[in-house]
Amino acid sequence: MNFTSDNIAGASPEILQAIVAGNGGVAAPYGMDPWTAEAEARLSDVFERDVAAVLVATGTGSNALALAALAPPGTAVFCHLEAHVIEDECGAPEFFTGGGKLVGIPGEGGKITPDGFEAALARFPRGIVRQVQPAALSLSQVTEAGTLYTPDEIRALCDMAHAAGVAVHMDGARFANAVAALDVAPADITWRAGVDVLSFGATKNGAIACEAITFFDPARAGDMLFRRKRGGHTVSKGRFLGTQMAAFLTDGHWLDLARHANRAARRLADGLAAVPGVRMPWPVQANEIFPILPAAVDDALKAAGGRYYPWTTRSLAAQDAPGAGERMVRLICAFDTADEAVDEFVAVAARAGAVQA
Amino acid sequence: MNFTSDNIAGASPEILQAIVAGNGGVAAPYGMDPWTAEAEARLSDVFERDVAAVLVATGTGSNALALAALAPPGTAVFCHLEAHVIEDECGAPEFFTGGGKLVGIPGEGGKITPDGFEAALARFPRGIVRQVQPAALSLSQVTEAGTLYTPDEIRALCDMAHAAGVAVHMDGARFANAVAALDVAPADITWRAGVDVLSFGATKNGAIACEAITFFDPARAGDMLFRRKRGGHTVSKGRFLGTQMAAFLTDGHWLDLARHANRAARRLADGLAAVPGVRMPWPVQANEIFPILPAAVDDALKAAGGRYYPWTTRSLAAQDAPGAGERMVRLICAFDTADEAVDEFVAVAARAGAVQA
Amino acid sequence: MNFTSDNIAGASPEILQAIVAGNGGVAAPYGMDPWTAEAEARLSDVFERDVAAVLVATGTGSNALALAALAPPGTAVFCHLEAHVIEDECGAPEFFTGGGKLVGIPGEGGKITPDGFEAALARFPRGIVRQVQPAALSLSQVTEAGTLYTPDEIRALCDMAHAAGVAVHMDGARFANAVAALDVAPADITWRAGVDVLSFGATKNGAIACEAITFFDPARAGDMLFRRKRGGHTVSKGRFLGTQMAAFLTDGHWLDLARHANRAARRLADGLAAVPGVRMPWPVQANEIFPILPAAVDDALKAAGGRYYPWTTRSLAAQDAPGAGERMVRLICAFDTADEAVDEFVAVAARAGAVQA
Amino acid sequence: MNFTSDNIAGASPEILQAIVAGNGGVAAPYGMDPWTAEAEARLSDVFERDVAAVLVATGTGSNALALAALAPPGTAVFCHLEAHVIEDECGAPEFFTGGGKLVGIPGEGGKITPDGFEAALARFPRGIVRQVQPAALSLSQVTEAGTLYTPDEIRALCDMAHAAGVAVHMDGARFANAVAALDVAPADITWRAGVDVLSFGATKNGAIACEAITFFDPARAGDMLFRRKRGGHTVSKGRFLGTQMAAFLTDGHWLDLARHANRAARRLADGLAAVPGVRMPWPVQANEIFPILPAAVDDALKAAGGRYYPWTTRSLAAQDAPGAGERMVRLICAFDTADEAVDEFVAVAARAGAVQA
Repeated sequence: MNFTSDNIAGASPEILQAIVAGNGGVAAPYGMDPWTAEAEARLSDVFERDVAAVLVATGTGSNALALAALAPPGTAVFCHLEAHVIEDECGAPEFFTGGGKLVGIPGEGGKITPDGFEAALARFPRGIVRQVQPAALSLSQVTEAGTLYTPDEIRALCDMAHAAGVAVHMDGARFANAVAALDVAPADITWRAGVDVLSFGATKNGAIACEAITFFDPARAGDMLFRRKRGGHTVSKGRFLGTQMAAFLTDGHWLDLARHANRAARRLADGLAAVPGVRMPWPVQANEIFPILPAAVDDALKAAGGRYYPWTTRSLAAQDAPGAGERMVRLICAFDTADEAVDEFVAVAARAGAVQA
Repeated sequence: MNFTSDNIAGASPEILQAIVAGNGGVAAPYGMDPWTAEAEARLSDVFERDVAAVLVATGTGSNALALAALAPPGTAVFCHLEAHVIEDECGAPEFFTGGGKLVGIPGEGGKITPDGFEAALARFPRGIVRQVQPAALSLSQVTEAGTLYTPDEIRALCDMAHAAGVAVHMDGARFANAVAALDVAPADITWRAGVDVLSFGATKNGAIACEAITFFDPARAGDMLFRRKRGGHTVSKGRFLGTQMAAFLTDGHWLDLARHANRAARRLADGLAAVPGVRMPWPVQANEIFPILPAAVDDALKAAGGRYYPWTTRSLAAQDAPGAGERMVRLICAFDTADEAVDEFVAVAARAGAVQA
Repeated sequence: MNFTSDNIAGASPEILQAIVAGNGGVAAPYGMDPWTAEAEARLSDVFERDVAAVLVATGTGSNALALAALAPPGTAVFCHLEAHVIEDECGAPEFFTGGGKLVGIPGEGGKITPDGFEAALARFPRGIVRQVQPAALSLSQVTEAGTLYTPDEIRALCDMAHAAGVAVHMDGARFANAVAALDVAPADITWRAGVDVLSFGATKNGAIACEAITFFDPARAGDMLFRRKRGGHTVSKGRFLGTQMAAFLTDGHWLDLARHANRAARRLADGLAAVPGVRMPWPVQANEIFPILPAAVDDALKAAGGRYYPWTTRSLAAQDAPGAGERMVRLICAFDTADEAVDEFVAVAARAGAVQA
Repeated sequence: MNFTSDNIAGASPEILQAIVAGNGGVAAPYGMDPWTAEAEARLSDVFERDVAAVLVATGTGSNALALAALAPPGTAVFCHLEAHVIEDECGAPEFFTGGGKLVGIPGEGGKITPDGFEAALARFPRGIVRQVQPAALSLSQVTEAGTLYTPDEIRALCDMAHAAGVAVHMDGARFANAVAALDVAPADITWRAGVDVLSFGATKNGAIACEAITFFDPARAGDMLFRRKRGGHTVSKGRFLGTQMAAFLTDGHWLDLARHANRAARRLADGLAAVPGVRMPWPVQANEIFPILPAAVDDALKAAGGRYYPWTTRSLAAQDAPGAGERMVRLICAFDTADEAVDEFVAVAARAGAVQA
């Protein structure tokens, strides 16, 4: 009953097997191996256009490098005020952008609205020298609240961004979960909607450690190979990234893994929603759940060995926030979460909820 | 007959097996898993003292993070003028140190001498505000010329460094090859000789991607976990680093792998040295060879499918440099280099050398 | 009737004369001249203790260098969300701190409250690797809203900061106005209250271009001479900074200049407050006024040649914000603001206000 | 008899008077004042084309900002190995370029030769990811050895640079001395020869503190106003920079000042050259002299109150270097160096030289 995160899982057997299969013989280093080329080709297939992709081993590296490619030193990067890039990466985007300013935008359920973005842009007018100039917008899909942007919502924000001379990055650490949940073409929530660069994560969905910095305009990839090397993110035996990403994208494996995680989260959410006193402040749309639990339920789950994190947020209206005797928590399901663990967890909660009700 | 580098090899079967074995079930992320703890414990065993180790996936990341821990923004890092950190990392040390100045020191055979270090230090006197202040010395063991520092040589340089208020880093991308070749205790060429931080590489000697930033004074590790995260180098599923390093250090596996590579290089060097017209400007002490070949031999090897890099250097006295009709090249042997490949390579060279002589 | 800022004024005759007087003969460069030594001695007198002071030519340079001395790369600097350092310095603090994160704290009237600071600190818990760690608190005295912290308010915030391992910087671009208005010993609102480093500005109060980065613990000044040089802020002919600061601090000249500006602002505020429809959302405590004007008054002032800036703020409670037909503006008085200009301005406003009322 | 530097002098009376004259009344801040506009217009006159100029108070600021505009993070800046930017600015160029690599090129007499530049470029081939990419060449005119590049020499280096995709910066801290000495049009040693950006210094030639970052292609100035602000180099009361530069460039004042300094240096050099045992390893072409003195002469000069710096260099062929009993020193003349001081200095040297000979 460990729902702390999707990075506590190992790798999917298929991906691990691909790594093992790629081990024999010599291969060119630094991403010049055939598996990396295959991964890039599959990304182009997935996105229905030629893309330029650069593989790295971490999501923070992927985000920070992508943002640095869009935001020169001394500019502003806009994101939700609880986005991973502003809250959870220990200043990596600031470091890689050479001191860029991350500007947090409020918005319920982890989502930026056009009004919120407009208000933020208005604070950084073009040509005013005392202000850093707007350079990039970073959208998280899935968001930090486990919610999703629709294709139309993304397009509206991208149009605003481009009109303001601002490029758009998508933090897709859980991009697979988003595509699986929305049941859209990957292109529909990325380049067709205006996204310029995607940090496409495989790690949380079954890889060991692999993320693809994906440029929808290959010309824009420009100096990313230099940036990656300078950031220390060029894996020497690059085949081990290439084999992961190629296997991840083969025969829809990435979506199968994500669908499993999403289904487990749905099962968990439905079960908890039926427990007296449990509330769901945000819609459950992918593989993350943020229920508000009665304290007794939380205590019972902890006592029964349930593992998950307490949650605080600035993305909840006052009337929806946890009240006395309530606790907000975060639960995440992974590609390998077992139905049994979900059901046991729900059962414990149900018993505790019934007692209290 | 591919001798381009030791990063064209895959992983050793033992290390790959450890990764597979560590895959099942849940494990705490970010290096809080049991394998990472085991790796750190084995590092303490190997070095005969408590060390603090932080694992990353790349050698450039390991070097740049280690140097940043020793050299605050606006200081000088001394190294050989052909060291990897100054020549081959695309400015990563400058980036991570916040604009540090890498100061290259000349020295034959890739080695810094006390005289060379003294002259370099003299250019950056303490307290002179127009100059960056000395902060770190980085020694490569094995050097970029395939040579080795003796324990006494290291101690002499470390003593000078410490007397000048300068901390010592060792770039040990091929540290295993050095220990195997010198047949010394790892402590003898590190902390007992005065080294403060070691970038201990496993990748080039049989891992997929794993390097241990090793602090011999654990108190000095200080904020490395923050630095690593901020650099995007904290691998999410940290178990995959921990399993590699633990397996690498189990039952002397790391030294077995290195000895194999060193023996192959010795076999190759001895074979080539017997070819008429072939010269060895530097002693062959580990797994890298830098022969100067007659052009005809080079041509014959290329024609026969031999793969390796041409080499230019600023670490060779004028009288030893390649003359007309000569070409300097670099050959590297790996943990899995086959005797057959070596022997075939030598045979081709021998035939070509005989024809020409 | 130009109230746009206090940097549209020239220099006070006394300070200009000191520059001229210091021009003859040779003098050691880079701040080693006798006038700079005299300036430092007078700063020690003013603050009733030995201080270490480093002179620079700009306020942004002073703030950014001071913050960089307190906040190592990858840490957080707390300030009011409308502080000059976060809003008006084009990312200089982020640049000089090597990518530090400026964290804006809300607070009415431009002031940080203990509750606000506590909430901000809580978002950056010690030892949590995904978060930058708290390093510095920057207080503006005078604030960006023209208000003042009392000695007790400063002490309370400093105590909280120090308890959290956070050093305190004061942006004193208008420090003279604060001291003059509060009628306290300079020490009472700085080191006696817990401030570690003060950016003490002379420019806005009558100098050409001179600011003193003042360390109350001289040992803490440490490497500031190197930082200053590396930032390009070491003025070659340093005597021209030294003469300014020495003259500024001679015979209470700095307080005379500030008192003049404060009195002019008081006269202006009193005059405007009597105009029908004019509101003062914040108390006028130094030399800056932020009245909310009826549109007709604003129009009349503009038509009559009045010069000042419109103002938007996030530091006003909703019920106090400008309503329909109202406009918030900023007016600043300088050391040389003439009573005639103030009276003429007020008269124009009064006439327009009377018509409308 | 103080020949330590040209920054020990004060300001020329004309420039000081211009500052005083500009002091009255209000003026727009941040360089939007009429004097700054006048300075920019005069720069366009001086260079016979429209230029974009941004004024700052320090030479290091000017150089570092200019280089940052040409060299994005992670690139290489080439310069003579004893250039001010690499040796004497405490890492400011590295800081402002976000960790750029300053590559020192050897060359006798402080000058880069085409061969030297070609060899340096060859070390940083385009497209090789492990190497930072070439971005800028910085030429010092006057050089650190007091020598001058001819227009043809500059053009040859600029042509090589541009062919390699490298922009050219000129460090003109003593540009006036160069123009005066060469008796050429300022355009002939800058944009007509291929220089892209000039750090045009006034400070060392009679200003208080003023340097003009001068872009010969105004479109290239681009974001310099933002860079300047972000570096803390935007002087608040910008009129004090504008008045200096405008006066400096009025009626050839800048060249009058430089000619005086050059003449004094010539007088000093001629006098010393006649002293037995004194050698001049480099030609004296502007206002700096680097004689090699017999120890007895050096001792006598010091005893008589002569002030100057000892000099060490890596730009002298072995056979020309100071031998036993010889000492190399640096002497600099300023815009206000008196003939009497020169003659007294020479007389002391002559007496000591005669005794020894």
